[in-house]
Amino acid sequence: MIELVESHVCFGGEQRVYRHDSQTIGLPMRFSVYLPPQALHDDAHLTRVPALFYLAGLTCTEETFPIKAGAQRFAAQHGIALVAPDTSPRGAGIPGESAAWDFGVGAGFYVDATQEPWSKHFRMYSYVRDELRDTVLAELPVDGERLGIFGHSMGGHGALMMALRNPEIYRSVSAFAPIAAPMRCAWGEKAFGGYLGDDRETWKQYDASELVANAPAKFAEGILIDQGLADPFLAEQLNPDVFEAACNAAGQALTLRRHQAYDHGYYFISSFIEDHLAHHAKVLLK
Amino acid sequence: MIELVESHVCFGGEQRVYRHDSQTIGLPMRFSVYLPPQALHDDAHLTRVPALFYLAGLTCTEETFPIKAGAQRFAAQHGIALVAPDTSPRGAGIPGESAAWDFGVGAGFYVDATQEPWSKHFRMYSYVRDELRDTVLAELPVDGERLGIFGHSMGGHGALMMALRNPEIYRSVSAFAPIAAPMRCAWGEKAFGGYLGDDRETWKQYDASELVANAPAKFAEGILIDQGLADPFLAEQLNPDVFEAACNAAGQALTLRRHQAYDHGYYFISSFIEDHLAHHAKVLLK
Repeated sequence: MIELVESHVCFGGEQRVYRHDSQTIGLPMRFSVYLPPQALHDDAHLTRVPALFYLAGLTCTEETFPIKAGAQRFAAQHGIALVAPDTSPRGAGIPGESAAWDFGVGAGFYVDATQEPWSKHFRMYSYVRDELRDTVLAELPVDGERLGIFGHSMGGHGALMMALRNPEIYRSVSAFAPIAAPMRCAWGEKAFGGYLGDDRETWKQYDASELVANAPAKFAEGILIDQGLADPFLAEQLNPDVFEAACNAAGQALTLRRHQAYDHGYYFISSFIEDHLAHHAKVLLK
Repeated sequence: MIELVESHVCFGGEQRVYRHDSQTIGLPMRFSVYLPPQALHDDAHLTRVPALFYLAGLTCTEETFPIKAGAQRFAAQHGIALVAPDTSPRGAGIPGESAAWDFGVGAGFYVDATQEPWSKHFRMYSYVRDELRDTVLAELPVDGERLGIFGHSMGGHGALMMALRNPEIYRSVSAFAPIAAPMRCAWGEKAFGGYLGDDRETWKQYDASELVANAPAKFAEGILIDQGLADPFLAEQLNPDVFEAACNAAGQALTLRRHQAYDHGYYFISSFIEDHLAHHAKVLLK
């Protein structure tokens, strides 16, 4: 059961926030949903719309994307719903869970933690892939056969990783400034070490550059990544070159666009959001 | 002298925040500026762009509009700069200045206060009309002959009031859900009483419905107002009907669009921001 927290008409559709008691997480979770006008017709239960899951970056919540990205304009044009979960459990009560901005609260990294004290609640991989999807499909006029996924930074990587592991669920994928090879950067090593433990072999199942290297081409329409070249995290944390090389080696089509002077924030994202919606629409609406 | 606080590339232009020591306010003030790509050419000092001043609503800051409204996409298309001041002085140290969300900090109402203890710092009318404009024209490639003004709620009214009093400065005007007749609602009576004192005659110079009633038609291209019909403040605080009647009586062309189901927030504003930029462009770019 989901509880409607708020709803605002936006481009003829509705931007909503929901709260539900997550079994996977063991805590209440919030997520936002944009339903385009096409999903609000009286017969929308008969004509379910495609949906894009959006995974946000470090420190963000389920509201960051709907407030800042300007995606609803294009979701309304294409008739695609947008679903954005929070970036971690909140209120687990784990000592120090909010001490760092790159680990713990706001930094779930879309993995299922195996290490104490995180493993009980920090299970964002299963939450997003299974429970949130099941909840959305049960409660809203969304077509489970036409789902895509995208995201930003930590969530851009989460989208790549989730799609590569679950191409039968997510038919299209794109990312803004993803942490493209988390096993090779400080953010990823801290998160994977903390949530998954010291055995780096167990990390590979959650690293998009590892996953694509060991998989045949899965997304015939290609993966779209936008990356700003003035992004302050590019050199140390993001490593799009590693992912690009892995895609090339695996025969996975990739459009990696490098943009002079753009940085890591939502002013960058909003500048290219139209292209991402079009990328997904090309697959989901054909 | 202005100090650049931050700058982000956005739709090929730059979204900036500046800080300066305001002589009018007697305190440091911040404002945001979006410069479209057309203002960033090497010869931009020769080809200054038009600019729109945006006045935000209660509790907002200079960043609310650039983060939430999605206006940069259209500012870039038209080649128009966007300038957004803060909504009040901050740091005046007046006892109780932050006690209410509808008076004091975040609620300057774009008037020059005459009452103690507000009159020293709370002078947003002169700040926006004179000092901020002078500063922008001195420091940035903006054309002082092609300025418009718009805003939301408290700032929607501020825009109407400023334009009606200064049609030689502002050539175009529009508003989202303005407090259209502040002398007839609780928000306006509280603010005007507090900043201007008990003599309601002194309030009229700051009330757009009074101003338009006592002035000949000033904006030949018309005033554009968008109002959501599910706006929770519509019945008690906004009174667009009063302003509409005053425009009709004064022969001032007005397009007042009433939108079923839309509320008071930025999801409403973002849905119609394209039309507002087009409204101003029609005047400023002809």
